[in-house]
Amino acid sequence: MGTVVQKYGGTSVADVDKIRNVAEKIIATQVSGTDVVVVVSALGGTTDELLEMAYELNKDPHDREMDMLLATGEQISIALLCMAIAALGQDAISLTGAQVGIVTDSSHTKAKIVDVSADRIVDELEKGKIVIVAGFQGVTDDNDITTLGRGGSDTTAIALAAKLQAERCEIYTDVDGVFTADPRVVSDARLLKVVSYEEMLEMTATGTKVLQVRSVEYARNHKVVIEVKSSFSDAGGTVIKESDEMMEKAIVSAIAHDLEEAKITIFGVPDRPGIAAAVFRALADAQINVDVIIQNVSEKGITDISFTLPASDFVRGKQTIEELVKDLDARGSAFDEDIAKVSLIGGGMRSHPGIAARMFEILAENKINIDMISTSAIKISCVIEEKDADRAVRALHDGFNLKDADGLSSGA
Amino acid sequence: MGTVVQKYGGTSVADVDKIRNVAEKIIATQVSGTDVVVVVSALGGTTDELLEMAYELNKDPHDREMDMLLATGEQISIALLCMAIAALGQDAISLTGAQVGIVTDSSHTKAKIVDVSADRIVDELEKGKIVIVAGFQGVTDDNDITTLGRGGSDTTAIALAAKLQAERCEIYTDVDGVFTADPRVVSDARLLKVVSYEEMLEMTATGTKVLQVRSVEYARNHKVVIEVKSSFSDAGGTVIKESDEMMEKAIVSAIAHDLEEAKITIFGVPDRPGIAAAVFRALADAQINVDVIIQNVSEKGITDISFTLPASDFVRGKQTIEELVKDLDARGSAFDEDIAKVSLIGGGMRSHPGIAARMFEILAENKINIDMISTSAIKISCVIEEKDADRAVRALHDGFNLKDADGLSSGA
Repeated sequence: MGTVVQKYGGTSVADVDKIRNVAEKIIATQVSGTDVVVVVSALGGTTDELLEMAYELNKDPHDREMDMLLATGEQISIALLCMAIAALGQDAISLTGAQVGIVTDSSHTKAKIVDVSADRIVDELEKGKIVIVAGFQGVTDDNDITTLGRGGSDTTAIALAAKLQAERCEIYTDVDGVFTADPRVVSDARLLKVVSYEEMLEMTATGTKVLQVRSVEYARNHKVVIEVKSSFSDAGGTVIKESDEMMEKAIVSAIAHDLEEAKITIFGVPDRPGIAAAVFRALADAQINVDVIIQNVSEKGITDISFTLPASDFVRGKQTIEELVKDLDARGSAFDEDIAKVSLIGGGMRSHPGIAARMFEILAENKINIDMISTSAIKISCVIEEKDADRAVRALHDGFNLKDADGLSSGA
Repeated sequence: MGTVVQKYGGTSVADVDKIRNVAEKIIATQVSGTDVVVVVSALGGTTDELLEMAYELNKDPHDREMDMLLATGEQISIALLCMAIAALGQDAISLTGAQVGIVTDSSHTKAKIVDVSADRIVDELEKGKIVIVAGFQGVTDDNDITTLGRGGSDTTAIALAAKLQAERCEIYTDVDGVFTADPRVVSDARLLKVVSYEEMLEMTATGTKVLQVRSVEYARNHKVVIEVKSSFSDAGGTVIKESDEMMEKAIVSAIAHDLEEAKITIFGVPDRPGIAAAVFRALADAQINVDVIIQNVSEKGITDISFTLPASDFVRGKQTIEELVKDLDARGSAFDEDIAKVSLIGGGMRSHPGIAARMFEILAENKINIDMISTSAIKISCVIEEKDADRAVRALHDGFNLKDADGLSSGA
């Protein structure tokens, strides 16, 4: 019998009615003739109350104790979900991360999975049970409870799907799947039926919020087929899997955009070896994740260096660079929070020249100024002014005819 | 260095301020020069919310899942308490029942401790840490989470004190200790400084609510010195320990009373072997805990059997007996919920005849009718009408002069 892993997020189990609804979905899957393993997050909202108490008691609580506290959230969800399933007549058993054997390193609050055991799960599936696993949490070799950080429950689900060699890993969330652009910005954005891991990674890195980079990477490395679906409707769903020859490769699959970035420029930097290293070492030491980096060809021995960073790191980044500008003997610096990054993603792009040119033309036709450009084999990103973001996304979605599945594509 | 185990109940950690107050008490104990292990219950009130959701989802939830759910309560408490201690500058670490190694049988919701490991606790104490342990919970050999049922956190604390050979086990609660009678009934009830395990067992069995029978038995079997204290004042405290020759033995130490009992009588039962066995086997099969049993000498081959049982078992007991009366060919039965059991407890009683007679005289002087009598070596219980209970307790407290520590006592 095949196995399906399903993951339900906090909004999907936010109250008693929603928990019951999820229980019905799970039972329907089992009845259809497959073993079911479910990964569930903490009930929406419960974590906030615990955090409030924690910070009232201690402004800087120890990460280990934070994990001890937060891990209770999923433990509550799994118990309640089992009770709901039992009330509907099916047999279910709940397991914490420690009980499953999701072994992590000891980086509390952002632990990484180092090993997954599935013996207990397999035992329970063989007894005919639905197995409900607490997402987001694991246990160290020393038996300390850890949590996996943002997107952790997705990672739990994908890791279990890999270990169990599941047919697929269904990620239930509050959207219908992955779209050609953010449907809140582009009214005729189209749901994508299939996306390759590479495309999904680029989309996630450029602002598409459906999954975390880490989960997609884990899935790619272990060849886990993901299906992103809404827990509130039966519509659609997007399959994320390895790109194969038979898969129709759209030249441009989707437009992603990200408003949560900021830009810093250092002007008139002496162009000598080690300067870029000094800048980005200082930022790394300040725990700042730099995104796009641009350094132009130097003229007269001086150059400008620009980079983008998450808006949440902006204050620290500004501080770091202002101190550095003096040491580097640079001419000055500029800081801009009001930027947007708009990206074109498509697996077929690598074999089709001219896509970048067309993108710049569309933006120019719409009088949108391009500030920075960065490209990869299957992605072109432009940094523009934040106020132009929605217009740019719509223009590109139209220009590349993404609302139409038979639009610009490279064929089989 | 000696070790002290402290246990704080749910009311002691009901909110952020109370948690901080408990953290200060714990630190003061450590600073006084002793290793400290703390056992804590779930935050007062949190468990109720979880139970409400559980019963909304499933009227008869599986015990295993109930334990999975309820165990989160203590896990929250231990994490928050550690954070509060850290904020005050001391190093603390929290451990769940499973992490400590409190191994129980698999009777979910009322599990019994079968083994306690203290290796992790000893390791952490050696690092200079205060160790905070989740009360009420354990883990089976199969790694399933269990809870210990009523009074479970007290049992956890006493079991750890036994394993760690602690100097004492301090149980912090919302009363100042053990009194000569319920202070809500007898205004001049006196706090007892020392009570023997045997006296405490009898008091607990006859209505004194400070500790559960099970915890006192565990302490007696492992010779753990208990100190019951208030977490809200520094006053008083009662030490519960082995009776020794040097301990002043009061003839009567305390008056206990219990309103939560009911009485059932079977009239005109044929007095032949096996009848009593049939009655109490039927009750045992219905999971009813019978307390006092009276069978009078038979007259003309028939007899009456009376017994008391917890008020909560009354409905089931009545049903059981009504069915049985027909089978036994008995004359009839009577059921009474409005009874009280008033008991005299004192370790010195066994060597002093005449105490029972004096008790009956005092009740008679106050025109209180005695319905049933039951005695042990250090206890005399009388079942009376519920309306007379408070008057009886006060009259006995006065009559045996319990308000005065130098009252009726047998000396060293």
